[in-house]
Amino acid sequence: MSDKIILIGAGLAGSLLSVYLAKKGYQVELFERRPDMRKTNIGAGRSINLALSTRGIHALKEVGLYEEIMKIAIPMKGRMIHNRNGDMQFQPYGKNDSEVINAVSRGDLNMRLMDLAEKNKNVTIHFNERCTGMNFSTGEVHLTNEVSSESHIEKGRTVIGTDGSASAIRMDMLKIGRFSFSQSYLEHGYKELTIPAGDNGDFLLEKNALHIWPRKTYMLIALPNIDGSFTCTLFYPMEGENSFEALKTESQLLAFFQKEFPDALALMPTLREDYFTNPVGTLITVKCSPWYVEDKVVLLGDAAHAMVPFYGQGMNCAFEDCTYLNGCIESFGPNWETVFKEYEKLRKVNANAIADLAVENFYEMRDKVSDPLFVLKKKIEHVLEEKFPGIFIPKYTMVSFMRVPYATAMQRGLVQDFILNELTIGIERMDEVDLIKAEQLIRDNLTPM
Amino acid sequence: MSDKIILIGAGLAGSLLSVYLAKKGYQVELFERRPDMRKTNIGAGRSINLALSTRGIHALKEVGLYEEIMKIAIPMKGRMIHNRNGDMQFQPYGKNDSEVINAVSRGDLNMRLMDLAEKNKNVTIHFNERCTGMNFSTGEVHLTNEVSSESHIEKGRTVIGTDGSASAIRMDMLKIGRFSFSQSYLEHGYKELTIPAGDNGDFLLEKNALHIWPRKTYMLIALPNIDGSFTCTLFYPMEGENSFEALKTESQLLAFFQKEFPDALALMPTLREDYFTNPVGTLITVKCSPWYVEDKVVLLGDAAHAMVPFYGQGMNCAFEDCTYLNGCIESFGPNWETVFKEYEKLRKVNANAIADLAVENFYEMRDKVSDPLFVLKKKIEHVLEEKFPGIFIPKYTMVSFMRVPYATAMQRGLVQDFILNELTIGIERMDEVDLIKAEQLIRDNLTPM
Repeated sequence: MSDKIILIGAGLAGSLLSVYLAKKGYQVELFERRPDMRKTNIGAGRSINLALSTRGIHALKEVGLYEEIMKIAIPMKGRMIHNRNGDMQFQPYGKNDSEVINAVSRGDLNMRLMDLAEKNKNVTIHFNERCTGMNFSTGEVHLTNEVSSESHIEKGRTVIGTDGSASAIRMDMLKIGRFSFSQSYLEHGYKELTIPAGDNGDFLLEKNALHIWPRKTYMLIALPNIDGSFTCTLFYPMEGENSFEALKTESQLLAFFQKEFPDALALMPTLREDYFTNPVGTLITVKCSPWYVEDKVVLLGDAAHAMVPFYGQGMNCAFEDCTYLNGCIESFGPNWETVFKEYEKLRKVNANAIADLAVENFYEMRDKVSDPLFVLKKKIEHVLEEKFPGIFIPKYTMVSFMRVPYATAMQRGLVQDFILNELTIGIERMDEVDLIKAEQLIRDNLTPM
Repeated sequence: MSDKIILIGAGLAGSLLSVYLAKKGYQVELFERRPDMRKTNIGAGRSINLALSTRGIHALKEVGLYEEIMKIAIPMKGRMIHNRNGDMQFQPYGKNDSEVINAVSRGDLNMRLMDLAEKNKNVTIHFNERCTGMNFSTGEVHLTNEVSSESHIEKGRTVIGTDGSASAIRMDMLKIGRFSFSQSYLEHGYKELTIPAGDNGDFLLEKNALHIWPRKTYMLIALPNIDGSFTCTLFYPMEGENSFEALKTESQLLAFFQKEFPDALALMPTLREDYFTNPVGTLITVKCSPWYVEDKVVLLGDAAHAMVPFYGQGMNCAFEDCTYLNGCIESFGPNWETVFKEYEKLRKVNANAIADLAVENFYEMRDKVSDPLFVLKKKIEHVLEEKFPGIFIPKYTMVSFMRVPYATAMQRGLVQDFILNELTIGIERMDEVDLIKAEQLIRDNLTPM
């Protein structure tokens, strides 16, 4: 028993973490509430498409899964902005084609990770096992089998809660003393829609881009799938005058898409079925502290810090949690309480930062991306990045293409925003005078990374 | 059944609310987890002393309980600041002796309110009844009797959760969709200590004051009891170099009090027993939304918005909730969903404001009250209040001696702080020039209330 570790939740984070732990020689027992998605056709969770970037890739490389996973990924080089009149504008994410994010299907990725986890003899995934809570004194986990309805208790050397944003383990931590916790919902929800592939599996929009139809208080986005289709997501208020609640009839729906997203509408033959069949998802941010109870249990991924999807970092942050937890096990194992304490110390401030940046990026995506001043600033950022390598690095680059701590990215991003604001007061383009001014501002405010 | 309302928790808010509802003709069934404190000697909850002020008094007057309750209250006219060398300084709360707050024992007050509630034939208090949750579809409340261990279900026209900061009803609301919630703990905890009465029940410190020993990062306070004793509360960090965790031995305890609170120590013969017997309490802030589920249930008082005790408004705010809920019942009853919706609309923003002010006031009490500039500003406030009646009103006055919405008090307080800061830049006293400057600032920034 001493080497058995219990993981609750075989989602992306749990499946990946089991590989890390197996490589360290632990016996991993992974309990998953849902049936095996490789055998039954079930939904993959709260969103279908994800953007895999540097932090997630680093973790996959650490456990040797990178090559395998990249087979199901599509690189996205930038944002393709769609205006109402059908005009499009491409905004690259990075300084060149090496700086891309990768569209992957959550379901495909989860299934691959489960396959790869089970290749390790010391990993066992138990399906249809709902965690109903935990005894923090004894370390016992309470589980109920969803098929037989029978309850049982499991115990190992320790427990890791990778059970997502509605974590049952975390819910029980509310009952212990001095557990700080918050969950807050955006007023927007989301609904997934489809642009199918063309004849012969052609992509009907630019394949290597994340498409955005920004409309100020709401937006539509689309990410490519390997079969040639795009998964679209409409982010829209839950309630009020313009909302999912108010958009009730087919004619309202068509009029809305005709006015706001005519070019997308032309590619969406199943819009009506999709809209009236698919559920409205909610957008939650969860923060809590502490993430662990003694040496009994620790939270990882969404269970510790659920975030909204607008920076494409939920999975990447969870995978980076695995990298850091693994590092702490190397430094402090098998003193689990110290492992958990150091892991939280390293990660919590950064998880808070990316959660806040993700909310902030919603406003950028749905609103600012179509603003000429925003576009100018993005261009200036790339000029400054080139002129001051290693000193001025766009925030998006620090978050998506580097492994610099999220909190550092946020702080340096604020200073850089200040510099960009100073530079663009009353100007429309970057000239020599501005560059001299920029140089002074950067020397005054930034130290090399 | 149609006129039966179920209240969960017969604390201060639940007991008072039952009287409001009884006066409206409802049959009130009040379920309380603890035994009857009038018959068994149990603790009264999380703090022994409370400060009853205008909002709470207004509610007591509305239901005709004011005269009876004031018999057990002691007016406190201001703060008595104790320095390390034994010097004292009195800072009045209001502009005259009509502006006082009233020390009451939580236990005495709760027992009186229960007595007065039970005088209404349509109020029944059931003791030893633990609420274990609620079914929001049916409106059924799940209860377990703590003596017999038997479980039963209760149902009425609606349910009101007055079950305090650890509300079981609210805990179940976490399971419904889009419930935003936060609980956060201060790094400080508290421990209650005693200054007994002198011979013949004499008060050994000034009776009509709230005593404070401010020591920057921590503080001791004392409130008078009607038997001549004072209940002291030490607010101190939970962990770290100077903390409850570190203060472990008798000699450490005595050395600490000798150095920091020598005048109090001389009056505390039971310090050692009190310190090593009494538990350390925690200080929590709870915010959530929505406060209600359809017409099935609504939260009131600490269950909806627990706050730290440093503005003395937890009970007063809960009592004011009763005033407002009663007003909404008058306007919209028996349409309970509308009642609850309007009640939350009126109260939530204000509950948030006082919760934030209460945290802020901790820093004022433990730190700023001994700062000469702070003392000067307090004096200037009273001068401005006199010169601009109804326009410049100190924040403490708005919160404690008026019923202006807490959010308004907070906003106007910010503007006034700005004015006070402007007036005290580089000056040590209020002269004619400053008054002219003040007049201009006030005319520019404030409208009469």
